[in-house]
Amino acid sequence: MALTVVGSIAFDAVKTPFGERERMLGGAAVHFSLAASFFTEVRPVGPVGEDFGPEQFAVLESRGVITDDVERVAGGQSFFWRGRYEYDLNVAHTEDTQLGVFGEFEPKLSAAAQAADTLFLANIQPDLQRQVRSQCSAASFSGLDSMNLWIETAQDSLRAAIAEVDCLVVNDAEIRMLTGESNLARAARAVMDMGPRAVVAKQGEYGAALFTAAGFFALPGFPLEDVHDPTGAGDSFAGGFFGYLDGIEGEAGDADLRRAMGYGTVLASFNVEEFGTERVSRLTREEIDERYAALRGMTHFDAA
Amino acid sequence: MALTVVGSIAFDAVKTPFGERERMLGGAAVHFSLAASFFTEVRPVGPVGEDFGPEQFAVLESRGVITDDVERVAGGQSFFWRGRYEYDLNVAHTEDTQLGVFGEFEPKLSAAAQAADTLFLANIQPDLQRQVRSQCSAASFSGLDSMNLWIETAQDSLRAAIAEVDCLVVNDAEIRMLTGESNLARAARAVMDMGPRAVVAKQGEYGAALFTAAGFFALPGFPLEDVHDPTGAGDSFAGGFFGYLDGIEGEAGDADLRRAMGYGTVLASFNVEEFGTERVSRLTREEIDERYAALRGMTHFDAA
Repeated sequence: MALTVVGSIAFDAVKTPFGERERMLGGAAVHFSLAASFFTEVRPVGPVGEDFGPEQFAVLESRGVITDDVERVAGGQSFFWRGRYEYDLNVAHTEDTQLGVFGEFEPKLSAAAQAADTLFLANIQPDLQRQVRSQCSAASFSGLDSMNLWIETAQDSLRAAIAEVDCLVVNDAEIRMLTGESNLARAARAVMDMGPRAVVAKQGEYGAALFTAAGFFALPGFPLEDVHDPTGAGDSFAGGFFGYLDGIEGEAGDADLRRAMGYGTVLASFNVEEFGTERVSRLTREEIDERYAALRGMTHFDAA
Repeated sequence: MALTVVGSIAFDAVKTPFGERERMLGGAAVHFSLAASFFTEVRPVGPVGEDFGPEQFAVLESRGVITDDVERVAGGQSFFWRGRYEYDLNVAHTEDTQLGVFGEFEPKLSAAAQAADTLFLANIQPDLQRQVRSQCSAASFSGLDSMNLWIETAQDSLRAAIAEVDCLVVNDAEIRMLTGESNLARAARAVMDMGPRAVVAKQGEYGAALFTAAGFFALPGFPLEDVHDPTGAGDSFAGGFFGYLDGIEGEAGDADLRRAMGYGTVLASFNVEEFGTERVSRLTREEIDERYAALRGMTHFDAA
């Protein structure tokens, strides 16, 4: 079992009502990889600059993440994002984005990364997603995240990229925007008509919903009294989800996808408890399984 | 077992992208009573005008709702609400509200209504809620709904009313507004500190969450491809919730509250499938139990 993820590997500056960090390890592929590392062997693919040093590599490698496909570009600067959250943490403001070495990124995956069983295309320009997809033709399960920017500016490419994956994982508002359908159940069906056999609608603090041919499944967000930084929650969700699925034997059935939703929810919940990668870097599998069991308890109700 | 509810009994004019109705039976106490009628004996309390005739009474009575405490005021007009929903049905606009006989309402409950085991105070002015609460001192379980208007204009009265009930059932945004706490888990705890032992946060299409001393429970909204009119969904939820609880033996424990959440979710989902009371008036208990079982299936996932 092996999982490849392509996406941003970055430095984030984040301010929330509960604190701030000026330059911390971040990026979709980082949050995804750390979350997935509890379940399988994971290879993030993406460029970093000279500012990305041993300290950053160590965070990934201490969780067993294989960094051979993290390409360090001489003279370059890493992707940088600066954001601020309001008192209502659901409201985020991007204050600065510097693409850095990501502006020139031309994915060239190692043989090991190309041989992955599972592939996740985190939120990057959809043509780049397609290039990576075509290099990972052996992957038996693949997923894709995106954002409103690409729906607005590169929708044809994005639709082509979506057609080539098994599972779309985006915010519910983006599913509506992409399909022009305000009813989420209909919108998810429209996405499945494009190709994917599963659609995961991320719903922020409300949790996430899964649509497949077999039906509907939904989980609430794990309730937390202390949320310090929502950055990377969606990527941690995806990391738990695809990491779990890559770790199982055989093709993922509906029960597996539901368990994966549970692990995604749990990883996202740990991610937001502290800033950046702070909480997930020192997480244990025991803590994950304990919270997974708690989540099951919180969603169980008896027959009539 | 007997359940009393006080709240609006009204005519609604509603326009959604899927149709419109000029003058249909509506109001919180009506939607609540019809939903609760599948589980127990229910008495709505409230005034109507001369425009409220046999046709309207028949809708309630054909579901076994006891209308003795529906007070027909000579020369008066019933409460009237006109609203419009956008293509995104989560966005509603109130275009007209005419209090009519509700402007002069002084609750005087019959002995039978006062003897209720369970009491629900639907969204009306909080001093009126307290008057009804004091007349139903025998009720062993009581609930209250409210809205942003009363949080803004009558917060002291509302807080006093909340202190006198067992269960607050409001939208999650209202829980945050009432407590000044943006984290929902903390906000719910702050409400429990005011008196109630249970807090239900209604979350629209995302479902509903339950907070008690025993912990957290949440259910997604039942997924529907055809939603025609969201009016009364929250009241139907409350009717299913309190109706179910009134119908059980003994004090409601955590498992009972969770089942009640399930029935609330199911009744709300039927309510929105058609306009006003159209769908729930011809609903059967078999359909309810079938959807309850489906909802259990949609929220089940296996142990790790």
